Amino acid sequence: MLPTPKKFFLTAASAEGNSELTAFDNALLAGRIGNINLIRVSSILPPGAEYDPELSIPPGSLVPTAYGYIVSENPGELIAAAVGVGFSEDTFGVIMEFAGKCSQKEAEARIEAMLREAFATRGMKLVDMKIAAAEHRVEKIGCALAAVPMWY
Amino acid sequence: MLPTPKKFFLTAASAEGNSELTAFDNALLAGRIGNINLIRVSSILPPGAEYDPELSIPPGSLVPTAYGYIVSENPGELIAAAVGVGFSEDTFGVIMEFAGKCSQKEAEARIEAMLREAFATRGMKLVDMKIAAAEHRVEKIGCALAAVPMWY
Amino acid sequence: MLPTPKKFFLTAASAEGNSELTAFDNALLAGRIGNINLIRVSSILPPGAEYDPELSIPPGSLVPTAYGYIVSENPGELIAAAVGVGFSEDTFGVIMEFAGKCSQKEAEARIEAMLREAFATRGMKLVDMKIAAAEHRVEKIGCALAAVPMWY
Repeated sequence: MLPTPKKFFLTAASAEGNSELTAFDNALLAGRIGNINLIRVSSILPPGAEYDPELSIPPGSLVPTAYGYIVSENPGELIAAAVGVGFSEDTFGVIMEFAGKCSQKEAEARIEAMLREAFATRGMKLVDMKIAAAEHRVEKIGCALAAVPMWY
Repeated sequence: MLPTPKKFFLTAASAEGNSELTAFDNALLAGRIGNINLIRVSSILPPGAEYDPELSIPPGSLVPTAYGYIVSENPGELIAAAVGVGFSEDTFGVIMEFAGKCSQKEAEARIEAMLREAFATRGMKLVDMKIAAAEHRVEKIGCALAAVPMWY
Repeated sequence: MLPTPKKFFLTAASAEGNSELTAFDNALLAGRIGNINLIRVSSILPPGAEYDPELSIPPGSLVPTAYGYIVSENPGELIAAAVGVGFSEDTFGVIMEFAGKCSQKEAEARIEAMLREAFATRGMKLVDMKIAAAEHRVEKIGCALAAVPMWY
């Protein structure tokens, strides 16, 4: 089997670029996850996974990551992305992602609502939350992203 | 290298949610794959992989999964998702996914046609098929999904 | 942790199919990566990874791959996809993908510009590039794709 991640952190950032993909790449760099290989996952925090905001991951590593992002080519538009981790008492957690044409505050509120719904559906008690979000006013081509990289 | 999966099953389900992502999350839960980390793959059944509908996978595990899904916010709309596995005589199989605004029956028919095409293109004999599908009449925000999780 | 890839190659191809997914499947087959499980990654060439155009990967393997593709159902339309790997002097490289309604030449030019931007942003010297691209005039349902599979 693939090894289950043991550590995680949250990051959110935004950037401009000359193209859609380089705006995304620049936002990843601004979020300090630009030099690794993100593998997108949906989106459970493994039981016992430890929060480690100082995690340093070697370049090129394959990193299971839950993330949301939005790229906009409309100058002046406000975009935002948020991720949240909901923690249970003693087992796995749930990760939610959101990105849209809204403020950081609205993105955060959506994440919080989604986490509450996810725990209610599972009949689990939500004991804590961590949320990271970023907003960005587009100049030319802009990207907002938020991510929960998981590691070992 | 990443270890090649040895087991698989099929699942299909649908659900409502308060948002796009929680509708998806609720459909995953209804399909009994809501508490794992899906890694999306395209989409070959490894040679010798064994069908195990009773597979139980620990929460938070990284699970290579071929899947298709659709989320709709149009009340009254009929949506469906299907997956199919086509089996060869003695080597790998092929997995196909489909999701759209149609009935379960149509989604299944599309999967069957895609599997036949995939085997014809490869010059391989299609000796058996397994298909799983779900349809859903949207109430507020609905999701239909179908998946082939692969495991060890 | 997941093992970091040690080898890579580039491929680009196009094909027709009877559906969106089988057009994609047929393009993968034309590019000689149709019988493996692609895991999409974004998109760094690990330090020391070796170029091996003769790589043969067992069917069903889980293969971290950076790729771009486009499917079109508009007969007569020209579509193209390109990938590029930018190499640094002595550390990791950067992979860029592009797909759109344009010629192969334009797709290649975009990749080159994106690689230059990615290295400039990182303050790294771009010492070499490898690019693979394909274009396709759609007959019924066509797909152009370009990929950098990474392996061990």
